[in-house]
Amino acid sequence: MKRVIIIGVGFGGINAARTLAGQGLDVLLLDRNNYHLFQPLLYQVATAGLEQEAIAFPVRALIRGWAGVRFHRTEVTGIDLAQRQVQTTGGAHDYDYLVVAAGSETNYFGLERVQQAAYDLKQLNDAAALRNHILTLFERAAHEHNAEKRQALLTFVVVGGGPTGVEFAGALAELSRLLLRSDFPELEGANIRILLAEAADSLLLAMPKRLQEYARRRLEKMGVEVLTGAVVADATEVEVRLNDGRTIAAHTLLWSAGVRPAGLAAAIDAPRARGGRIIVQPDLSLAGRPEVFVIGDLAYLEQEGKPLPMMAPVAIQMGQYVGRAIVRLERDQALEPFCYFDKGSMATIGRNAAVANAFGVKLAGFPAWVAWLALHLYYLIGFRNRLVVLLNWAYDYFLFERQIRLITHERKVDKAAIGAPRTIQG
Amino acid sequence: MKRVIIIGVGFGGINAARTLAGQGLDVLLLDRNNYHLFQPLLYQVATAGLEQEAIAFPVRALIRGWAGVRFHRTEVTGIDLAQRQVQTTGGAHDYDYLVVAAGSETNYFGLERVQQAAYDLKQLNDAAALRNHILTLFERAAHEHNAEKRQALLTFVVVGGGPTGVEFAGALAELSRLLLRSDFPELEGANIRILLAEAADSLLLAMPKRLQEYARRRLEKMGVEVLTGAVVADATEVEVRLNDGRTIAAHTLLWSAGVRPAGLAAAIDAPRARGGRIIVQPDLSLAGRPEVFVIGDLAYLEQEGKPLPMMAPVAIQMGQYVGRAIVRLERDQALEPFCYFDKGSMATIGRNAAVANAFGVKLAGFPAWVAWLALHLYYLIGFRNRLVVLLNWAYDYFLFERQIRLITHERKVDKAAIGAPRTIQG
Repeated sequence: MKRVIIIGVGFGGINAARTLAGQGLDVLLLDRNNYHLFQPLLYQVATAGLEQEAIAFPVRALIRGWAGVRFHRTEVTGIDLAQRQVQTTGGAHDYDYLVVAAGSETNYFGLERVQQAAYDLKQLNDAAALRNHILTLFERAAHEHNAEKRQALLTFVVVGGGPTGVEFAGALAELSRLLLRSDFPELEGANIRILLAEAADSLLLAMPKRLQEYARRRLEKMGVEVLTGAVVADATEVEVRLNDGRTIAAHTLLWSAGVRPAGLAAAIDAPRARGGRIIVQPDLSLAGRPEVFVIGDLAYLEQEGKPLPMMAPVAIQMGQYVGRAIVRLERDQALEPFCYFDKGSMATIGRNAAVANAFGVKLAGFPAWVAWLALHLYYLIGFRNRLVVLLNWAYDYFLFERQIRLITHERKVDKAAIGAPRTIQG
Repeated sequence: MKRVIIIGVGFGGINAARTLAGQGLDVLLLDRNNYHLFQPLLYQVATAGLEQEAIAFPVRALIRGWAGVRFHRTEVTGIDLAQRQVQTTGGAHDYDYLVVAAGSETNYFGLERVQQAAYDLKQLNDAAALRNHILTLFERAAHEHNAEKRQALLTFVVVGGGPTGVEFAGALAELSRLLLRSDFPELEGANIRILLAEAADSLLLAMPKRLQEYARRRLEKMGVEVLTGAVVADATEVEVRLNDGRTIAAHTLLWSAGVRPAGLAAAIDAPRARGGRIIVQPDLSLAGRPEVFVIGDLAYLEQEGKPLPMMAPVAIQMGQYVGRAIVRLERDQALEPFCYFDKGSMATIGRNAAVANAFGVKLAGFPAWVAWLALHLYYLIGFRNRLVVLLNWAYDYFLFERQIRLITHERKVDKAAIGAPRTIQG
């Protein structure tokens, strides 16, 4: 039986495995986490809207009905393309086909001090740690009598005006309003500052101009200060410095200004594009290695003269394509080149407010928001998770209530201690 | 306005605060956690049946409608009975009345190596850490070829045959069956050993003989090895040694063999009973200090010649009593002595199986199990939490499915790092 190894259980890896199930192949999924993570909702975990368990699904439960698919929780340490072997902390595995779907990690562009001080939203722990941090700051602010120090505790800087930055800033504005109104009478009259810094001259660059402007207006209406043309140059735990010299006293910096290929990319001997993504052939294989496929955020492929974006829908379609491609190769059938079908993109800003651009239709406001909710529920894996998410959303929407405002740990999770730094899932 | 300080937001503290709300007093609740924890369900978090967020409720959300009640998240560092002052890491607070409801912590009876190696179920983090640990062992066992090492990974020792030990052992047996049947085809034929060690000669000592025997039979039927008259003398991360010299190769030791008063008890200058609990007057006040009340697990009071047990129902009734007592004192009314009304006790063993002893009625099996479910749902705080718990229970019952089998952290939580050792909530 031919052996397929898939590295990573993100959107790409899971879809490849699902497509390969029941095709008479021995499929081995490898990841350091035992769950598939629905990253698009991480920002809601970070803003006390969802429990982390609601957006993760155990891989072994997922693959139970997928004939021929196995899972091994391990860390991939190397890939030997010549020997067709994957090295892991749990031993080496030979393959006939390899699918590398290791995803991406946050890109701090070499700003080490910023990396030290900032939070990001890539891993499940990141989101819970950020929630604990935000709630702890409110608790501290409630008993801080020095006005300047209190303002710094209640100032939040978000870097990056893409969907993650916009969604987090909006959700944080709503959480802050809830905390002020319901939880912290001590903070009456306090000014909670949320700054959204974007290097370019508008938010949501991938969106049409009209939707960009709607998003900005809407965020500003919610009290978010949008700084375009603003680049963060340095940060400590209590201060953020922009490259125009301005400094902002703030205890929170969320970095969502960029991603880069996961560290595992370095283990693959293949040409790279700018940014480090691995250049793949039109069928997503490596040049000269038709048995090795690289998909998702790791892969660099141009379509209509533009590189495909590092987004979940691309990874999903690539995963499905590669699954079918391997089956075709086994049947000695020729491969059509991969073609990404762009269904559009969307971002939610807050209650009743989102933007969506799909199939040439540009939506803003309530209809986009309903579409966003429906789509995210649809793509979330697991009926129980959907129910829990729906329950939380209903509570938030109708009762203006978020019950996950729990400080479950006191400090930023020490990633070295929990072994999370060199992730292989994006 | 008279100031009441309540230390601890467990069952005792919360009930005292609720009773004091709207009585024209300034009530300040202090705790290091910002949530009330429903400890009786911790074992279900540890066995992947519930997410930790479902059994915690934010204090500030709880007290929102309680007139005159405030919350301060802080650590209590000292109590000055003469000056009527509580010292905290966030400053000192004067009081007119003090209610100490700091609860209990795990008692390792001086076995330091055991403490180092063992898990316990007192804090929210403990339960999630134990779940991560158990699931990680299964993942490791799936790829362990050495039979002896594999058996040690799959051997779980539970110490203490009280409700926590019995409930955890039963729930672990059910989780193991689910993991073997659905998740780990690699472990087909593996022998998962769960040993429940109790120093006395039967389980559930507070229960009638018939129910003790039912619990033992039922556990044994589920594959749990019940060792009565067994005392754990030492343990490392890979081995448990009994005081008769037997050693058991096991990577997991859950310690539920005893509790002792929280460390804060040392800060109170008052006579202690054996075990360190603070001796209180019949009205739960300290001798010579009518303005200071000690309640819950911290308090030592005899009723009908026996000390009141360290259990949630006692804490709840003491909290309510003290709330009423302070109101009476303010009105110059005399205090009746506290009288615990024993509604009985219960413990669940597994699916359709529990024991209950209430109002002279002894129930075992399905009716006790239904009563257990209903009562725990009733006492859980928050409608959302009840729905989430009910949803999880329904999934588990009808679909034999637990979706929280996620390894969210890799290692035992370093309690020093997250600042959790000197808890003031039990």
